[in-house]
Amino acid sequence: MNAAVVLGLDVGGSSVKYRLASAGSSDGIPAAIAQGTVQTPKKDPVAGLAAIARDVAAGRRLVAVVVGIPGLVDEDRGTVLRSANLPALDGLALGPALSAALDVPVGVINDGRAAAVAEARWGAGAGERDVFTLALGTGIAGSHIVDGRVVDGAHGIAGELGHVVVEPSGASCACGQRGCLETVVGAPALRRAWNRAGGEGSPKDLLAAYEAGDERAVRVVDRGAGALADAILTLLALVDPGVIVIGGGLASAPHRLVVRARALVDERATFHRVPPIVPATLGKWAGAVGAVAEARALHDRSPVALAAN
Amino acid sequence: MNAAVVLGLDVGGSSVKYRLASAGSSDGIPAAIAQGTVQTPKKDPVAGLAAIARDVAAGRRLVAVVVGIPGLVDEDRGTVLRSANLPALDGLALGPALSAALDVPVGVINDGRAAAVAEARWGAGAGERDVFTLALGTGIAGSHIVDGRVVDGAHGIAGELGHVVVEPSGASCACGQRGCLETVVGAPALRRAWNRAGGEGSPKDLLAAYEAGDERAVRVVDRGAGALADAILTLLALVDPGVIVIGGGLASAPHRLVVRARALVDERATFHRVPPIVPATLGKWAGAVGAVAEARALHDRSPVALAAN
Ligand SMILES: [Zn+2]
Ligand SMILES: [Zn+2]
Repeated sequence: MNAAVVLGLDVGGSSVKYRLASAGSSDGIPAAIAQGTVQTPKKDPVAGLAAIARDVAAGRRLVAVVVGIPGLVDEDRGTVLRSANLPALDGLALGPALSAALDVPVGVINDGRAAAVAEARWGAGAGERDVFTLALGTGIAGSHIVDGRVVDGAHGIAGELGHVVVEPSGASCACGQRGCLETVVGAPALRRAWNRAGGEGSPKDLLAAYEAGDERAVRVVDRGAGALADAILTLLALVDPGVIVIGGGLASAPHRLVVRARALVDERATFHRVPPIVPATLGKWAGAVGAVAEARALHDRSPVALAAN
Repeated sequence: MNAAVVLGLDVGGSSVKYRLASAGSSDGIPAAIAQGTVQTPKKDPVAGLAAIARDVAAGRRLVAVVVGIPGLVDEDRGTVLRSANLPALDGLALGPALSAALDVPVGVINDGRAAAVAEARWGAGAGERDVFTLALGTGIAGSHIVDGRVVDGAHGIAGELGHVVVEPSGASCACGQRGCLETVVGAPALRRAWNRAGGEGSPKDLLAAYEAGDERAVRVVDRGAGALADAILTLLALVDPGVIVIGGGLASAPHRLVVRARALVDERATFHRVPPIVPATLGKWAGAVGAVAEARALHDRSPVALAAN
């Protein structure tokens, strides 16, 4: 018999990560039958993603697909509302269209949300029921996950740690406020601060220089780590999570920014209860893991699966 | 037949508020069979509170009591861990002792928590599933209540809006940080700012002067309202509640501080979703209402009640 499989796709601006797993439910991380990276289809995203799904399934019986998208999605309708990185998807009813092309249920989710839930359940947050994940990159995305579910507030915007003000008269933020955390430790802000201080290259070069003891780099990283520490202290006062998991491009290799921020949180905390502040462990596959887990859940509640039970 | 009644006590430094209600469960606010205020017993708190309970019950069949205490309590054990205002209760196993004296189940809860839940369920938060309550007084207490339950984080300290930093180089706070919201809009801070500006009297006098258009008062209130607005914007970014209910001595009559803060939140909000920001409606009875509701719940799950079902 041809065992049923489910597919998770994590669609980025330049590449699509995929993870294929058995359709069977389990509490553990969905083991990869296949995992890899392919180019993002630029022209016809529905036909392109359908072709990727067929290639990856390679003749196995595919029963559900979930696609993680960098942007705002309507999960109930499977529609991409807005995607800055993938304008071809803007406004597209991707779920229904891909479902028609593949003849299986297809779900659409936000990629950061998928990654955060996976990291909380099977990555650095495993075993904790109350997890706050933070992705440091161009933007700063936060997600509060309790019992494996995203707690996103009354209007779906909770967890926006990147737009907590840490420098009241600071730089203008894309969101319209001044001095948001993102204006200090977002990748473009770090690059600007590093270049202003006379350093060359990107935030990765900044962190390498910091590692090597460059004084200018120490000053720039310390300011960033201080802002991150202040934002985390505010998070502890208001949300009080059981663990903070930090991932994203800026958090990985070297972890110095996070290590320094953690030291400053310890130093500045008063009444707060400082939880473990740990690096993410699923790395770049977190989104695909979250998507394939959602595909399993989608299959479990699909009429076909229910009829088969 | 003598119908069963439950009693809620809200114990303050100088007076005890009581509310007596029928023991029957209901989703509505527990209607008061009797409600009032008596002096707080100073010497023997257990004997004193037992006497109050007997007086208020006045021969009716009392089946459960819950006592709200201004301080840190261990709800599971019914113990008062620390109470700055009522040192006689410090470390006292009040629940078991009062239960032995009255021969009914007795629960002990934090008074602010009891008031917040009551305000969320039956006061200004009624009908909203995601409510953040804020009590403005000497201190500033916040509680996030979702579906009628306090969401208090992994270590029980979530919701501490009073200790979110709004002025990074501001005044020292009792909590050890600098520039917490409490250092700007706590009653002592407002009084100091008002007196420094040449005003006389208390924060109530400040608000009266503001009402009358006194320019010094306008400056002091504007700074406080600005700090409160900034803290609320941080709350919207991280917690995103469906309604914010503001009560406490400083919020009531006149509401100017809250009205001004609300205007500034509207003015400064960017990506945030600003929920209704409304005054509390249960007033000084919120704690007693919360306590009597808890007493009903305590009776519902007591072995006697279960055996009778
Ligand atoms: Zn911002
Ligand atoms: Zn403080």
